[in-house]
Amino acid sequence: MGSLNFDYPCMENPLDPEEFRRQGHMIIDFIAKYYQQVEKFPVLSQVQPGYLRKLLPKSAPYSPERIETILQDVQAHIIPGITHWQSPNFFAYFPSSGSIAGFLGEVLATGFNVVGFNWMSSPAASELESIVMDWLGEMLKLPSSFLFAGNGGGVLQGTTCEAILCTLVAARDQKLNKIGKDNIGKLVVYGSDQTHSAFRKASQVAGIHPSNCRVIKTSRSTSFSLPPNALQTMICSDVEAGLIPVYICATMGTTSTTAVDPLGPICHVAKEHNIWVHVDAAYAGSICICPEFRHFIDGVEGANSFSFNAHKWFFTTLDCCCLWVKDPSSLIKSLSTNPEYLRNKATDSKRVVDYKDWQIALSRRFRAMKLWVVLRSYGVDKLRNLLRRHVRMAKLFEGFLANDERFELVAPRNFAMVCFRVSPLAISKEKNTSAVKCEKNGILISCSGAKEKSLDTKEHEKLINKINSELLESINGSGRVYMTHTVVDGMFVLRFAVGATLTQDLHVVMAWKVVTEQTTNILNNYGKLP
Amino acid sequence: MGSLNFDYPCMENPLDPEEFRRQGHMIIDFIAKYYQQVEKFPVLSQVQPGYLRKLLPKSAPYSPERIETILQDVQAHIIPGITHWQSPNFFAYFPSSGSIAGFLGEVLATGFNVVGFNWMSSPAASELESIVMDWLGEMLKLPSSFLFAGNGGGVLQGTTCEAILCTLVAARDQKLNKIGKDNIGKLVVYGSDQTHSAFRKASQVAGIHPSNCRVIKTSRSTSFSLPPNALQTMICSDVEAGLIPVYICATMGTTSTTAVDPLGPICHVAKEHNIWVHVDAAYAGSICICPEFRHFIDGVEGANSFSFNAHKWFFTTLDCCCLWVKDPSSLIKSLSTNPEYLRNKATDSKRVVDYKDWQIALSRRFRAMKLWVVLRSYGVDKLRNLLRRHVRMAKLFEGFLANDERFELVAPRNFAMVCFRVSPLAISKEKNTSAVKCEKNGILISCSGAKEKSLDTKEHEKLINKINSELLESINGSGRVYMTHTVVDGMFVLRFAVGATLTQDLHVVMAWKVVTEQTTNILNNYGKLP
Repeated sequence: MGSLNFDYPCMENPLDPEEFRRQGHMIIDFIAKYYQQVEKFPVLSQVQPGYLRKLLPKSAPYSPERIETILQDVQAHIIPGITHWQSPNFFAYFPSSGSIAGFLGEVLATGFNVVGFNWMSSPAASELESIVMDWLGEMLKLPSSFLFAGNGGGVLQGTTCEAILCTLVAARDQKLNKIGKDNIGKLVVYGSDQTHSAFRKASQVAGIHPSNCRVIKTSRSTSFSLPPNALQTMICSDVEAGLIPVYICATMGTTSTTAVDPLGPICHVAKEHNIWVHVDAAYAGSICICPEFRHFIDGVEGANSFSFNAHKWFFTTLDCCCLWVKDPSSLIKSLSTNPEYLRNKATDSKRVVDYKDWQIALSRRFRAMKLWVVLRSYGVDKLRNLLRRHVRMAKLFEGFLANDERFELVAPRNFAMVCFRVSPLAISKEKNTSAVKCEKNGILISCSGAKEKSLDTKEHEKLINKINSELLESINGSGRVYMTHTVVDGMFVLRFAVGATLTQDLHVVMAWKVVTEQTTNILNNYGKLP
Repeated sequence: MGSLNFDYPCMENPLDPEEFRRQGHMIIDFIAKYYQQVEKFPVLSQVQPGYLRKLLPKSAPYSPERIETILQDVQAHIIPGITHWQSPNFFAYFPSSGSIAGFLGEVLATGFNVVGFNWMSSPAASELESIVMDWLGEMLKLPSSFLFAGNGGGVLQGTTCEAILCTLVAARDQKLNKIGKDNIGKLVVYGSDQTHSAFRKASQVAGIHPSNCRVIKTSRSTSFSLPPNALQTMICSDVEAGLIPVYICATMGTTSTTAVDPLGPICHVAKEHNIWVHVDAAYAGSICICPEFRHFIDGVEGANSFSFNAHKWFFTTLDCCCLWVKDPSSLIKSLSTNPEYLRNKATDSKRVVDYKDWQIALSRRFRAMKLWVVLRSYGVDKLRNLLRRHVRMAKLFEGFLANDERFELVAPRNFAMVCFRVSPLAISKEKNTSAVKCEKNGILISCSGAKEKSLDTKEHEKLINKINSELLESINGSGRVYMTHTVVDGMFVLRFAVGATLTQDLHVVMAWKVVTEQTTNILNNYGKLP
């Protein structure tokens, strides 16, 4: 078939199907080649701030440029500035696990480019979303009260922050409708010191008084999970002070250490005070499709809403946050709009889901497509095994650590992420053999001959953190792997998160090699100082 | 190059490059074929609510399915449920103008699948965004105070609702920091009855008291633009009542009729009272790259923020809302988070832009890529001409209307959208020749022999609206074109929005043919009744 005719002289239609085909194939080959090469690039981009302005023109071009030229620039200028989340050597943050199926689904949705704000604007987009959310809810063994079949329902948000914001606004308005909208300043929300920063941000956006964001302290002794007793105490004291508890954000798989908050007891406390409980399972929710991991969300039946990011550890490209709520009408009451220009018979019939009323934005991409293609391309069994494979690789790394007494695990490895550090013991030992450096006023000085016990505890902690921080920097500076860190209970901790789709055992082995080499270097350097 | 080895028995890696290439080519051909066929599909999906549940299995498959099978299902089950926004016969809502360049950019970003929340997580993503936002701001001749060069800056949001929410939260917190956070209930925000529903929703989400959302009435006599005098009066009366004006949402190109609010006078009023002005140019902002249209945003120099959607009428796939602010620090103060696990030296150096602090969500896609590919693939000159081409086609349709006395324009055609209806005059005429039906209690009854003057005015208005509503339904029921409606000043109005990339003159001619045919039918039917 030939190109479409175009009614403007000397111009090709920017959506000409034949040209689309030509350039489309080119881009697929470009990306396939990228995946073949990605292992060779420094995982963490090594460019300096401002690098790109020096390379690109000051203004947009006046005349068209060829796609071939643009792709050359992508290769030469963009790829060096990319931190390669798809690299098999990417162990930072949480994974952004791409897959062919996730990619194809996103591409199909981009091709259709529908704006599915309500049912009528593309019935397939809304209906497929409801269907896959029921499929996925069933895979997770969510109580049926979260599924459409049980008068709940699922929706795809962009990110967890949006999921929290939508449910928080629903909970807020439910409460304010009872107590009067003037009382917004009395509402209190609860999380732990391990709750994701998205929670504080969502509270801030929703107009919760900043001083009414409660942060419950966790500790290493309870593996950084939220202590329900402390929650209970705090709620009671707020109620006594005339404040009104409205929302608890519980986490299954915290960002720092993948800690799991005890959902059952938290929901029990919440129920007494009629507080909305949201379960943020952003990273780890997906693993609950494996029966042996499902127990981590036991108690979810008492929650009001549950979300996880399919774009983190479920082979679906960014962005795709799966949110289920028991009471969709509470979302709709807060978030619905009904301007005349969107009125239609399907909506009026109340037989359809208009997802615009379940989210912040009006416009929405056809995200269900990618989730559907992922679920069908891999199937439940293979998806389970793909996740188990990542857990197994994390265990492999954990095993290496366990056999090297220089390291300690800082928190239990619940899933596919290992939190570790060079242990204080190892640093004492090094110190005992010769000398050790410690920091004063930000400058490294030698504390030659100092015995462990005679070292000021705070100074020692600082030293341990300093060594671990330098270790991380040298690991990432190698360009061979990329890990990130956190600080919990004052400890600087390295996080090794397995989940990049291309990662294989050999990459974990290599990562371990980098860790041990750099550790030896660093400890030697400290040891050698006079 | 062969496939990667995979360390799990009997399983292929879900990101195997060779398999990626095979399936990727398949999907490109599938979409190219879709564009070739799209003209033949009914533009507005003709499926009934619940159609898809009947066609799909109750649960996700246990075992993998082949991509070929999945694509067959997309063709058979999904495409019939799609409302074809890419069809050349799509004239509904506002366009979602895809292009090869926009598509390729999105696909590249999906391939890299980076999560660019801060500079370090992918420097190229952040830096390219700042660069293209400066390019685009310059193309629009935004004052330099909105560009990075002038200490302002641009950011890509998903949608206008997010842009409004972010700027509203920034304005809110700026004010609350002065007057105390307990005063949130006193804040007042302003828009017109033509302002997009996103504004009310954003205000609702941000905790603005619902009774403090002011809606200023517009009228046909001033082409539905916001009257600054009424704004001034309302603000003064709020201030006298002890309330605190905080935010005005002005619109350049309203959704109902593409009305343009007078930015200069609005900003003047705002300045007196230190109110944040946001300019929502969601649909029409792009046309300001044409010098002859730039005057529509004269006065923007007095505003605090400006946004338009590149995914509407700028050949960039959904979602891509371009937002510029004069004072990025106000956004950052409200929206920044700094959890330990995201701390890094680049951020600490303050030499980089961390876009997570400019938006609601943490995670963000590499949206700059598609905007960059669009700007380069087409260049400034062609982009201008592509937009002018749409305006010219809208003028063509407007010309058809002008030559047919049965219709009237309801508002000026400022851009590429025509608002029209069957005129009261035409309906009177039909009525005078025979009889006319009018509605009572929702049932059509005949008002035979009634003269125009003797018809109750309200009944007559209802009748005119009923006829226009039926006209729209019959136009869309034909499946040959899709338009939508609005109601302004009590008038039911048909909206004919040109902007689908594949649309050519012949489609506009055909749409006009459908309109006239259906109008003749409907007026005849009314005329024929006893």
